[in-house]
Amino acid sequence: MSKPLILVTNDDGITAPGIQALIQVAKEFGEVHVVAPDKPQSGMGHAITVSKTIHINETIVQGCKAVACSGTPVDCVKLAVNKLLPRKPDIVLSGINHGSNSSINVIYSGTMSAAVEGALENIPSAGFSLLNNSIDADFTASKKIVRQVVEKMLEEKLPDNTCLNVNIPDIEYDLINGIKICRQAVANWEEDFDERTDPAGNKYYWLTGKFVNYDKGTDTDEWALANNYVSIVPVQYDLTNYSAIEKLKSWE
Amino acid sequence: MSKPLILVTNDDGITAPGIQALIQVAKEFGEVHVVAPDKPQSGMGHAITVSKTIHINETIVQGCKAVACSGTPVDCVKLAVNKLLPRKPDIVLSGINHGSNSSINVIYSGTMSAAVEGALENIPSAGFSLLNNSIDADFTASKKIVRQVVEKMLEEKLPDNTCLNVNIPDIEYDLINGIKICRQAVANWEEDFDERTDPAGNKYYWLTGKFVNYDKGTDTDEWALANNYVSIVPVQYDLTNYSAIEKLKSWE
Repeated sequence: MSKPLILVTNDDGITAPGIQALIQVAKEFGEVHVVAPDKPQSGMGHAITVSKTIHINETIVQGCKAVACSGTPVDCVKLAVNKLLPRKPDIVLSGINHGSNSSINVIYSGTMSAAVEGALENIPSAGFSLLNNSIDADFTASKKIVRQVVEKMLEEKLPDNTCLNVNIPDIEYDLINGIKICRQAVANWEEDFDERTDPAGNKYYWLTGKFVNYDKGTDTDEWALANNYVSIVPVQYDLTNYSAIEKLKSWE
Repeated sequence: MSKPLILVTNDDGITAPGIQALIQVAKEFGEVHVVAPDKPQSGMGHAITVSKTIHINETIVQGCKAVACSGTPVDCVKLAVNKLLPRKPDIVLSGINHGSNSSINVIYSGTMSAAVEGALENIPSAGFSLLNNSIDADFTASKKIVRQVVEKMLEEKLPDNTCLNVNIPDIEYDLINGIKICRQAVANWEEDFDERTDPAGNKYYWLTGKFVNYDKGTDTDEWALANNYVSIVPVQYDLTNYSAIEKLKSWE
C-alpha cells in the first residue's frame, strides 16, 4: 500500500498550536497536506461560503505542503478534496481544537463540521479537541491519543457515514484512564448576552453563556471526560428523528 | 390562553420576500416579533458569532416589531429568546427560504439551523423553504401550507427535541398532492470549484456544485418533492451514531 494521503485542517486557524501538534503526529503516518482557515473560525458550524470568493495562500507548516484558506473549515475540506489535493485523501484529521467539542458543541464546532464534511465525502475522518482553551495548552498527552486513534483509523474501517468526535481531558497522559466510546450528552448553553452601548449610544452585544449538562448517564462524553477518560462519539449527519415520523403521520 | 408570541427569522435576510410572506401568515396566529439577519446568511449552517460583537437595528416589517441583526440566523434566535423578546416565544418560524433545504441541505442551511436552535431552547420550531431560488418566487401556495403547519404546531405538541423541516414544491396550490412526513434522503453535493485568476495573478475560487440524490426510497423528502408533495422531516440534533457505538467498543 502506498503512503496514506492525510488532509489536516482545523477551525482555530493555520497558525494555532493545536494544528501544529496534529501535523506532527500525522506526519508519522503518511503524506500530509494542510488546508486550514487563514484566521480563527471557531463556532462556524457547517457554514460554507456561497456568495463570496474563496482565496488561498500556499505555505509550509511543519515541513508539509499547506494552504491558508479564507473560507470556513467546511470550505477547506471541500476545496482540498475537490480541487487542491493530488487525489482523494485517505483520512481527514481536524484539530487539535483549543477547547471542548463534546456534547451539543458538536453542532457549533467548525472543527467537527470539517470532520463531518470528510465523512460526507466518504473519507474516514476525526475531529480532536483538548479541554483547554488557552493558546499555551500542553498537547503532549493529546499527541499520544491522536497517534492511537489514527493507528486504529488506518487499521480498521470506520462505520459508514460516520466520523469521530474525540475529546481529550486536560491532564497528563499517565492520569488518563483510557478511551470510552460514548453518546453525545444531553446538554445546552444558557446564553447570557453582555449588552453594551457604543460611543454613539447604540446597543451592541457579546454572546456569552454557561454550558449546562442535563444528562446523568454514565455512557456520555461528558461523564467520560469528567472521569478522566478520552471520549469518542461516533457522529453521523442524518438529522431525521425517526421515532417522530410515526407520531406526525396524522398530519398527512 | 393569551395570544401566542411568535418569533420569525430567516437566513436570506430581513428584506427578503420570503420572510415577508412568513410574517403575513404568522400575524394571523399571534403577536409576531421579527429578529432576522441584516444581510443574506445562506449557507451559514449552525454558525454563531463568538469573537465579534453583534449589532442590531430596530425597524418595523409588515407592521410588526422587527430587529435587523448583524449576526447569523442562530445568533438571531439566541439573542431574541434570551434578550430581546418580552418572554420566551411560543413558536419559532424560519423562512420562507428562497430555495430547497431538503435532504443534506439541512446541515448547511441557516434557515434550518435557526429552527434547530429554537428546538434546542425547547420551543416548537419549523423552517419553511420553497423550491425556487428566485427573488420573484411566488409564495401564494407556500403561505397556505405555512398556515396549515402553524395551525398544527399550535394545536399539537411536537415530539421532544425536534423541529420541522418543511419544503414546498414550486407549483400552484391546487397541484400539490398533500403533505408527506419523510426521512432525510441520502444525497450529497458534488462540488465543482470554479478557479479564476485575479488581476495580480493569484488564484481564487467560487464554490459551485451539483446536488445528487443517491436515495431510491419512496419515504424521503426528495421523493415527496419530486411527486408534488410538501415534505416534512422531523429534525433532531443528537448526532450520535448509536449503531456504531457497539462496533467501536473494541477501541476502549
